Amino acid sequence: MSSERRLPPAAHALINGDRRVLARLITGAENDDPGARAVLRAIYPRTGRAWLVGLAGPLGVGKSSLLNALISHLRGLGQNVAVVAVDPSSPFSGGSVLGDRIRLDRSPDDPGVFIRSMASRGHAGGLARATREVARLLEAAGFGIILLETVGSGQVDVEIREVATTSVVVLVPHLGDEVQTLKAGLFEIADVFCVNKSDLPGADRARRDLMEFASLGGGDPGWTVPVVATSATTPSGIPELWQAVEAHERYLDSSGKRIEGERRRLTQEILALAESRFVADLSRDPTLPRRLEPVLARRLDPETAARRWWVERRKGRT
Amino acid sequence: MSSERRLPPAAHALINGDRRVLARLITGAENDDPGARAVLRAIYPRTGRAWLVGLAGPLGVGKSSLLNALISHLRGLGQNVAVVAVDPSSPFSGGSVLGDRIRLDRSPDDPGVFIRSMASRGHAGGLARATREVARLLEAAGFGIILLETVGSGQVDVEIREVATTSVVVLVPHLGDEVQTLKAGLFEIADVFCVNKSDLPGADRARRDLMEFASLGGGDPGWTVPVVATSATTPSGIPELWQAVEAHERYLDSSGKRIEGERRRLTQEILALAESRFVADLSRDPTLPRRLEPVLARRLDPETAARRWWVERRKGRT
Repeated sequence: MSSERRLPPAAHALINGDRRVLARLITGAENDDPGARAVLRAIYPRTGRAWLVGLAGPLGVGKSSLLNALISHLRGLGQNVAVVAVDPSSPFSGGSVLGDRIRLDRSPDDPGVFIRSMASRGHAGGLARATREVARLLEAAGFGIILLETVGSGQVDVEIREVATTSVVVLVPHLGDEVQTLKAGLFEIADVFCVNKSDLPGADRARRDLMEFASLGGGDPGWTVPVVATSATTPSGIPELWQAVEAHERYLDSSGKRIEGERRRLTQEILALAESRFVADLSRDPTLPRRLEPVLARRLDPETAARRWWVERRKGRT
Repeated sequence: MSSERRLPPAAHALINGDRRVLARLITGAENDDPGARAVLRAIYPRTGRAWLVGLAGPLGVGKSSLLNALISHLRGLGQNVAVVAVDPSSPFSGGSVLGDRIRLDRSPDDPGVFIRSMASRGHAGGLARATREVARLLEAAGFGIILLETVGSGQVDVEIREVATTSVVVLVPHLGDEVQTLKAGLFEIADVFCVNKSDLPGADRARRDLMEFASLGGGDPGWTVPVVATSATTPSGIPELWQAVEAHERYLDSSGKRIEGERRRLTQEILALAESRFVADLSRDPTLPRRLEPVLARRLDPETAARRWWVERRKGRT
């Protein structure tokens, strides 16, 4: 049974380039709205070919300017480009702390550019799921290149890494102590290093250090992580940065890593979706209150209570 | 069947005050070591009466000095006190970025004080579980007061809030813009506000603002969040801060909120422990590869694949 049989009207509008429908569906996907779910099911067969390029890096490395320069470059190449900026945000408010962080200096009327901020918390099913779904909506709307920007807070970068096909890690010549400690983590997810603000002193040194680091390998033995120096304000190095991304995307195809990555990501996605259904079953299990009582009375420890519950459910006794 | 029947030797040593065994068991609990698990099961009946006091607040509000002053005060009252400092850390290395953050100016030989840093990532089963288990080990080792310190990064504070019986939110008179945006989140978890560095200009204003905020209610209608001004360096306000914590702990008893909170926390704990068992079952399900294939071929969307899996497992067909 194909999911493609009948397209809902909103899916038609999405595919035909209606940007207001796109924006509405993204919000719907973030909120787990049934209408958006139906569209996601319907468009799924049309997705999976977009480049999802992650741009990770600490605050202050100039990612907004870099995004601006990249968008100009890609528009010059005739490419549509979408940006999803994933913001750290309060887990309480659901609001986006840095919602106004990206101020891009281009016409809001250019239909070849679409920019969206996403809060990093409060998504039913997790950030990776929400980002993946937003990317599918963008791809169905005609965006073949989707830039996923994160601000270098560990857990968010890891989740986005699970979605991106190429991860660019953006650094600057000199970083404070706190950032240094994060670098070890950022290093491990990089497919491409970008030394931005390369007009600052120390840029050559930083580039050499990163190249030395990259030559040590450690990640994918078939891919040597390139180091590109950019200056988003000049701008310089932007075409070279994009060439490095293209080279990595071509490598994914030629090496079979693209399909391997897709297999891993979809396995995780199906598992996570099934898990959330079973977890919902558990929380509705009518035996939970009576299982709690001996634990509350300190006659039985929580782990043993959980193990017995698991054993009995597997035997179909509850 | 009681968990208390036979105490493992390590549990005996723990209860008898052996601090090296305590330290080893904490590491064991963090690493999900079977020996530590057995001790946790055995000591569970002896736990549940400690005060778990969370101290949350952004970096730079002087929580280390405040902890120092609080420890001195509590030791003066003849209380044993343990500190668990929960650090943000790279999800990759498992290391503790701020491991050396707490430098306390007291004798390492005082058996009435125990201090431990915990990385905020990389715990099998999550941070809340690890913290809860470490607190149980500390309680069994004779610590009736356990201070849980976090650095005000949203998600960590929320998880610790789920463990603490009283949450103290520490602020200073003037905070930068970034911190202001976090405050909304911190506000919602506070049982006690502490304005530290109250010798700085603006402290009175900050105290009045917080009292006004607290008087608006919003949280527990039976508890008005007190605002205490402290200066950890002078020191001043420390006895008053502890009195506010005591008042909240007494309120928990008199209002029935303690048992209510314990019921909620233990329900969550049992659910989370059972979930992890069912999730492990899922990832070992032999039908997963054949369920992946149509999704990979884009003939079926991930959500539908997950839903069918769930339906078939519930019917016992897989």
